[in-house]
Amino acid sequence: MTVGFIGLGNMGQGMVDNLLEKGADLTVFTRTQSKIEAMIDRGAKGATSVADLARSVDVVLVCLPDIRTSRDLLLGEDGVIANAKPGQIVVDHSTVDIATSRACAEAAELKGVHFLDAPISGGPGGAAGGTLAIMVGGNEDAFETAYEYLGKMGANVKLMGPSGAGTAMKLINQLLVGINTVAAAEAFALANSAGIDITAAADLLTVSWGNSVMAARSAPITATRDFANSAAPVRNLDKDMGIIKDLARDEGLSLELALKSYEMFHHMIEQGNTEHDIAGVLEIIEERSKN
Amino acid sequence: MTVGFIGLGNMGQGMVDNLLEKGADLTVFTRTQSKIEAMIDRGAKGATSVADLARSVDVVLVCLPDIRTSRDLLLGEDGVIANAKPGQIVVDHSTVDIATSRACAEAAELKGVHFLDAPISGGPGGAAGGTLAIMVGGNEDAFETAYEYLGKMGANVKLMGPSGAGTAMKLINQLLVGINTVAAAEAFALANSAGIDITAAADLLTVSWGNSVMAARSAPITATRDFANSAAPVRNLDKDMGIIKDLARDEGLSLELALKSYEMFHHMIEQGNTEHDIAGVLEIIEERSKN
Repeated sequence: MTVGFIGLGNMGQGMVDNLLEKGADLTVFTRTQSKIEAMIDRGAKGATSVADLARSVDVVLVCLPDIRTSRDLLLGEDGVIANAKPGQIVVDHSTVDIATSRACAEAAELKGVHFLDAPISGGPGGAAGGTLAIMVGGNEDAFETAYEYLGKMGANVKLMGPSGAGTAMKLINQLLVGINTVAAAEAFALANSAGIDITAAADLLTVSWGNSVMAARSAPITATRDFANSAAPVRNLDKDMGIIKDLARDEGLSLELALKSYEMFHHMIEQGNTEHDIAGVLEIIEERSKN
Repeated sequence: MTVGFIGLGNMGQGMVDNLLEKGADLTVFTRTQSKIEAMIDRGAKGATSVADLARSVDVVLVCLPDIRTSRDLLLGEDGVIANAKPGQIVVDHSTVDIATSRACAEAAELKGVHFLDAPISGGPGGAAGGTLAIMVGGNEDAFETAYEYLGKMGANVKLMGPSGAGTAMKLINQLLVGINTVAAAEAFALANSAGIDITAAADLLTVSWGNSVMAARSAPITATRDFANSAAPVRNLDKDMGIIKDLARDEGLSLELALKSYEMFHHMIEQGNTEHDIAGVLEIIEERSKN
């Protein structure tokens, strides 16, 4: 069985590294030719286009930065599904909206192609280490076939339900990442106001009910106020929480903390700090405080 | 050295159980005479009043339900500090506001008494198991002396700083407990809307950035919708978040998620569901959603 990968960004690169190291028969395509050549030097094959890649492998994995790019590459005339054959499996690791995942699944089904929405969590470190959480929506047989590759990239790979369920689970995770990050920033603002050391507070939290993965992650970044440049730039979370906002509106769901958190992250974007770490939302809280 | 304990509520009872089992020379006082007698049957001494207890032990521990009771028992005419002697140590395990902790420390200092604010986290299970987190504010020598008893009740006992620092740390923890609980409820509302099983979502979260102690705690309660009666009734968190609201106002701190979360928990109180679990805030979200 052969596998292709489209999109060698800061997540995709780590994912293909794991596929290659673990012996997959791999073809890659991405916009930047030098990245393709670097992978050829290491034993992968290079495709000349999205369509070329789609026609030459059994399982197509894509990892793309936004909904528009996923729709173009997956649903477009020269895209993956248009060039796929019956029985082929297409997997989208991008974070998109549920409607896009379901539209891809329907377009694929018309051609006898299996589509899996399979967003990832764990950051560039998880991608490089092959320890990603991968949440999958779609057909169980297709999931079990694709697991040969998903299992090389992730430590926790779970079928969550039918098409769209992987994307829904990723949005659930991102909602929590967003709110818990603002919660940690409010907690650290309170700590600063009360003269409590951030590192000592984080240490105490490790055995308290208030702890979260995001509080533990934000603490050292906040203690050093090293908000500029980051492995978790706010532009990604801002995009994902915008999707959650649209979903809440469409479904009539009251998600008040999610919407307020999104507004605060978007304030960072409006200030031009797109590459700042999400923990930098502390600066928004400080601006809004009267000290 | 001898120790006294005032307040055998659902936290205090577990704490004195640990003191007694671990060999402390213990005297107790509480409003309910039968609770005192039960402790006498197990080898403790019983005091006849707050003043009697304060006069008869070296270290006085109190664990009380609200600010008014802490102020009455600690600062009142017949209270602990009025009846304490120089060199004695008084420890308040209650969750109060920072101003109350500092007022107690000042009143104690005038009499040559050491005061420690030492709120606890871990719930009745932590109290019974002797595994509480205890966050302490005050003098280092007094902390080290009192540690003989604090170490019997808690697994993570930390001096956070001068008087008020223990209380501040507890409020930091409660802010996170409150916001992270509402965050989990919003995440589970989204899961229900998208047809994702709550237990499967919680399982995936255990290896994802979105996880928190409160999301893990809320998941099984939410899966069974077993919100009535609880080891973490909303009345306690509502009280603590009210203290945080006042602190934010006094310090000019912008704590938008904390205030919104407080408003939602307070909505549960207004509905008369004071004993409902904090995870029951999901019902508030569902009421506010248009489904």
